Amino acid sequence: MPTRVVLRIDFDKERYIGHGRIRLLELIDEHGSIAKAAAAMEMSYKRAWYLIDEFNSTFSEPIIARQHGGKGGGSAELTPFGRELVRQYRAMEAKALKVFEKPLAFMETRVARPRRGRRLQ
Amino acid sequence: MPTRVVLRIDFDKERYIGHGRIRLLELIDEHGSIAKAAAAMEMSYKRAWYLIDEFNSTFSEPIIARQHGGKGGGSAELTPFGRELVRQYRAMEAKALKVFEKPLAFMETRVARPRRGRRLQ
Repeated sequence: MPTRVVLRIDFDKERYIGHGRIRLLELIDEHGSIAKAAAAMEMSYKRAWYLIDEFNSTFSEPIIARQHGGKGGGSAELTPFGRELVRQYRAMEAKALKVFEKPLAFMETRVARPRRGRRLQ
Repeated sequence: MPTRVVLRIDFDKERYIGHGRIRLLELIDEHGSIAKAAAAMEMSYKRAWYLIDEFNSTFSEPIIARQHGGKGGGSAELTPFGRELVRQYRAMEAKALKVFEKPLAFMETRVARPRRGRRLQ
């Protein structure tokens, strides 16, 4: 596994975006369903709704467009703003690896070898 | 409160550095004591030791130099490598705000106004 820089952006004390929320949006976009996205993250439907509710109240523009009804409880998709948010977050993440190449290399060369008998085998 | 980019660097599935660990190191450096640093973070001494132990096993070089004995249970200080790690992490954090100025501005202009009656008054 290569080194990864994970970003959390805090707009204020209660408003932020982070990896987990962005991943949930990507999965909603992929599956077209909040229930399926929650299942893919091994998250309860209730928890997924809580996150979406928090996320939606973070921004003044809607992130998810939900259509009620239909088979399986209706479909959900990202709004153009929701998609742009995901795109920009992932672009920042990719750029971070390039911009921080030097300090990351400094750290990587000093990372200890995997311990035996722990989670890594 | 201005927007803040918080970084977590995952070296592999179990090895990472993040904001909480770096803050603990800074406080150890400031107070010269693990107990005082833990208290400043409102963290138990046991929890601080657990974090330090995890952190030390992340890297092949020591991060904290501890001198036993003396008043108040002995002193602790960062090694030169520990200080450099903190310095580089904070430099990355500061640089992130500049490098990501555009996407952050895109997001900030769409952050909702604070909700009334919640944590913010």
